[in-house]
Amino acid sequence: MIRAEEPLLDRPPRVRDTSDIGSHKGIELGRSMSNEKKIVTGLGKPELHRVLIRGHDLTKDLVGKITFSHMTYLMLVGRFPSDGERRMTDALLTILVEHGMVSSVVSARLTYAMAPEALQAAVAASLLGAGSVHLGSSEWSAKMLVKALSVDGSSGDLGAVASSVVEQFAKKKKKLPGIGHRTHPQGDPRAERLFEVARETRVYGRYCDLIQQICKAAEERHGRRLPVNVTGAIGAIALDMGLPWQLTKAFALIGRTLGAIAHIGEEIRNPMADNINGAIKSQLVYDFDSK
Amino acid sequence: MIRAEEPLLDRPPRVRDTSDIGSHKGIELGRSMSNEKKIVTGLGKPELHRVLIRGHDLTKDLVGKITFSHMTYLMLVGRFPSDGERRMTDALLTILVEHGMVSSVVSARLTYAMAPEALQAAVAASLLGAGSVHLGSSEWSAKMLVKALSVDGSSGDLGAVASSVVEQFAKKKKKLPGIGHRTHPQGDPRAERLFEVARETRVYGRYCDLIQQICKAAEERHGRRLPVNVTGAIGAIALDMGLPWQLTKAFALIGRTLGAIAHIGEEIRNPMADNINGAIKSQLVYDFDSK
Amino acid sequence: MIRAEEPLLDRPPRVRDTSDIGSHKGIELGRSMSNEKKIVTGLGKPELHRVLIRGHDLTKDLVGKITFSHMTYLMLVGRFPSDGERRMTDALLTILVEHGMVSSVVSARLTYAMAPEALQAAVAASLLGAGSVHLGSSEWSAKMLVKALSVDGSSGDLGAVASSVVEQFAKKKKKLPGIGHRTHPQGDPRAERLFEVARETRVYGRYCDLIQQICKAAEERHGRRLPVNVTGAIGAIALDMGLPWQLTKAFALIGRTLGAIAHIGEEIRNPMADNINGAIKSQLVYDFDSK
Amino acid sequence: MIRAEEPLLDRPPRVRDTSDIGSHKGIELGRSMSNEKKIVTGLGKPELHRVLIRGHDLTKDLVGKITFSHMTYLMLVGRFPSDGERRMTDALLTILVEHGMVSSVVSARLTYAMAPEALQAAVAASLLGAGSVHLGSSEWSAKMLVKALSVDGSSGDLGAVASSVVEQFAKKKKKLPGIGHRTHPQGDPRAERLFEVARETRVYGRYCDLIQQICKAAEERHGRRLPVNVTGAIGAIALDMGLPWQLTKAFALIGRTLGAIAHIGEEIRNPMADNINGAIKSQLVYDFDSK
Repeated sequence: MIRAEEPLLDRPPRVRDTSDIGSHKGIELGRSMSNEKKIVTGLGKPELHRVLIRGHDLTKDLVGKITFSHMTYLMLVGRFPSDGERRMTDALLTILVEHGMVSSVVSARLTYAMAPEALQAAVAASLLGAGSVHLGSSEWSAKMLVKALSVDGSSGDLGAVASSVVEQFAKKKKKLPGIGHRTHPQGDPRAERLFEVARETRVYGRYCDLIQQICKAAEERHGRRLPVNVTGAIGAIALDMGLPWQLTKAFALIGRTLGAIAHIGEEIRNPMADNINGAIKSQLVYDFDSK
Repeated sequence: MIRAEEPLLDRPPRVRDTSDIGSHKGIELGRSMSNEKKIVTGLGKPELHRVLIRGHDLTKDLVGKITFSHMTYLMLVGRFPSDGERRMTDALLTILVEHGMVSSVVSARLTYAMAPEALQAAVAASLLGAGSVHLGSSEWSAKMLVKALSVDGSSGDLGAVASSVVEQFAKKKKKLPGIGHRTHPQGDPRAERLFEVARETRVYGRYCDLIQQICKAAEERHGRRLPVNVTGAIGAIALDMGLPWQLTKAFALIGRTLGAIAHIGEEIRNPMADNINGAIKSQLVYDFDSK
Repeated sequence: MIRAEEPLLDRPPRVRDTSDIGSHKGIELGRSMSNEKKIVTGLGKPELHRVLIRGHDLTKDLVGKITFSHMTYLMLVGRFPSDGERRMTDALLTILVEHGMVSSVVSARLTYAMAPEALQAAVAASLLGAGSVHLGSSEWSAKMLVKALSVDGSSGDLGAVASSVVEQFAKKKKKLPGIGHRTHPQGDPRAERLFEVARETRVYGRYCDLIQQICKAAEERHGRRLPVNVTGAIGAIALDMGLPWQLTKAFALIGRTLGAIAHIGEEIRNPMADNINGAIKSQLVYDFDSK
Repeated sequence: MIRAEEPLLDRPPRVRDTSDIGSHKGIELGRSMSNEKKIVTGLGKPELHRVLIRGHDLTKDLVGKITFSHMTYLMLVGRFPSDGERRMTDALLTILVEHGMVSSVVSARLTYAMAPEALQAAVAASLLGAGSVHLGSSEWSAKMLVKALSVDGSSGDLGAVASSVVEQFAKKKKKLPGIGHRTHPQGDPRAERLFEVARETRVYGRYCDLIQQICKAAEERHGRRLPVNVTGAIGAIALDMGLPWQLTKAFALIGRTLGAIAHIGEEIRNPMADNINGAIKSQLVYDFDSK
């Protein structure tokens, strides 16, 4: 469905921004106290007649010529993606957009019904659940992988690293992040598809390998199916693409921003907030003796 | 930069979901009271072995085959975009990602520095400013356009409609939303570029025309440059693509989710929150007699 | 239940803060350009050995000696409350803390279940619904009152002002904010109680009068019970206490912060998020042909 | 400043709520599957003519008769406070309301300037930073104390427990949460004041003792002043009052909700958001070669 008829540049040129850099460099040399107080950014710069993004002219060289996934990769990794990396980025951005009437979109709908003048607040309420338990668990999973490889990675034996990780989590009685899924106990089709795309695009690397080995070790230890789930796959693939573990949640957050807005759109056409509250009330029991 | 070598389907097939629809339809016929309490969604459905998105199989037919902008259009408009609409969607998603060290990314950075264990909270804090004044003003601008055309639109004379809008806002001493920009007083290069892409992709329509006419009328009335700004352009183009005015802010929210994460990424590599606070403190004055 | 045995000062002294004020005043005299860039605050100032709050020494003169409602009044109005104003403030802070399993606490519980490491995010998600429809409507109601009195208030005939307000809203087919309540259609017991306390504490004034008159006019015009609801009462009383209309929502936000935390506490002792999702799912219908 | 002339009940009566409890109890006996799906709450119940709070009639027995701190204690602990506990609660609620132009109020001001129609969003943005680093660290500190006492607490030798905690954190090269403060390196006057009130009200207990011992042990080990800071004191005192460690952040969140609103109030009277952005821009350096 992607066609290339629009006159896309192979690589947008990088504009030399001579205005401030020089003075910054100058200050740099002196290492004056005042420089230590400077606020440095290399992401974007608005000027009177143009906006620079990582040194590229936003309107002249990017908008209309690149996809949002190119922009995502450029912003998060600092360079343009290869075709494979671009396709992988699109897969990661697309995979978590929508998963039915889950907690995060319930919050979006209820919040919007109360404050329709502030769509952004309903979307923010929706994102706020992207923590350690469901949507945001790629961060915890990726952190586990990075830590495992930085401690035991030199040996090269991923199987041993994986067993050691499983052992440590079992000892602490902690759930392995990124592994197992309630709705998809026999295997998360989304994780499987992401690994497929990762292999096809040659993004699949050491971190993908490691999380698969961790699953294998966990299944052996616990004697039941414990497949990688979608956030586990996202975490490993994002690490193999060069993202730091702290940012692997980016794909969930961008995807669910879209998802929340789509649910709000449906709420506008066909309001369901009252029925959601009604469903909850129909199961409600008051017990003032409970603690 | 977009290549089509991956085996993309021209239009992903729509899966017939017979499981619940039937019973829903059945209930529909009877219009029983219990049906009025049902919570209906047509966006997504998680099943044991697959996830359906607007009737399409997510992992089989979408992920790895479509871009995030296809997904955005599918979720918000309900069908796949044409090539032109897809290119326009990418332009809209890309245009607001980054605009330097603006208020919303300052909030993201300060929040992350205080709560690094909750990236989603820093991103949400960043989005919360997308209201009527800057980032979210496409909503107010689009609402103005929709209202103007629904009241006076039948005549077909957009110039008269535009003059009437400008008159009304002047009488109420209100700022025209989507028009004028502090950083780009002589013309917002982002708005200009979006209109260019809108013409090239033939998305440009009646709403784009109207906002341009409003600018013209406003400049004549007030005797100074009052060009469309980026959120004004987004609002008009999104309306011409078929989005309701309430959702035109979608592009700002998705784009800035990425932007906020990129700033947090920079904050992780090179922390600036202390210097931001330092810069503020260096200008701080305490005055307990002020009111 | 409130006893005064602790050695409370009648009015905490105001500390002279000579450190910065002087220099500020100095700058003031010159009205230099640099002063226009200063960031002025009169709320609080942290120093090495003390913290000043509106000129008072926080730890020496406030904490342990005043209640939170004294602090609320001091922060929002700028002086200490009389006993009546203090009692009224407590009533306003207390009235909205809890109203059962409403939308805002559902969001808090669902968000906390997903991100238990970020309690503040669950509380924030809960507050985000305090908009124009339910919890935050005191702002819209108070704005309506202020506008009505500033336009037509000189005449002194509140009945005429009220009729004119009701007429304008009816013409625009808009709901009167702060009037009518779904759960309490025959009268919101919380509004009635707040007005009682307002009369007892002599806070009851012109704005309280006006909203009562608006209800009377609305009931006459529409031929049915349209009593003031709790946010309408809060808005009017807060105005009569001297708050600006924009801040009348303060009581809902502070109260519900406590309410959300209490619900999260209950969720920790007795988790209900799964059952909430279950209740929603039991009423869920997928319809991919819906728009 | 607190007077008792208003006719306060000594202890508000508890209303018997017979409506649902019975059926709930009935279901309880059978332990049917459907009961497992029930959503149970014991906090509040809205009825047609009254609202129940933990079994008390909100408008008849609470509002106008109790302070917000009574309500806070009732909601979080489940019973009314003694006079000492009430005074301690007021101290905890008051201590963090305001600390100058800190990160969280900068976010509130910037967000409000962008979205003045959504005050709640600006307040939420402000709360979102109450994480592990500053404002929310009472949670981490309290967790450390609970863990320490549950592991080593039986012996009764708090000094040994404290040394062991300090040792563990030093080994992991982790900062002790609740200890040390940048603005108050020689001792946080707020912590000192809270401990004073805790002693006076006899709330001071084992957890307060433990954190003081941890400071002593840390100072001996590291050879420098490491006093308890305000969030460390809040955490310990809240534990000694019977709160779970997860909820100790309540006082920061409630207090700062008020603080954020007061700053927004000041922003309305005397807007500073532009000057805040100006101060940041005056220190801004663009460096597109930075990583």
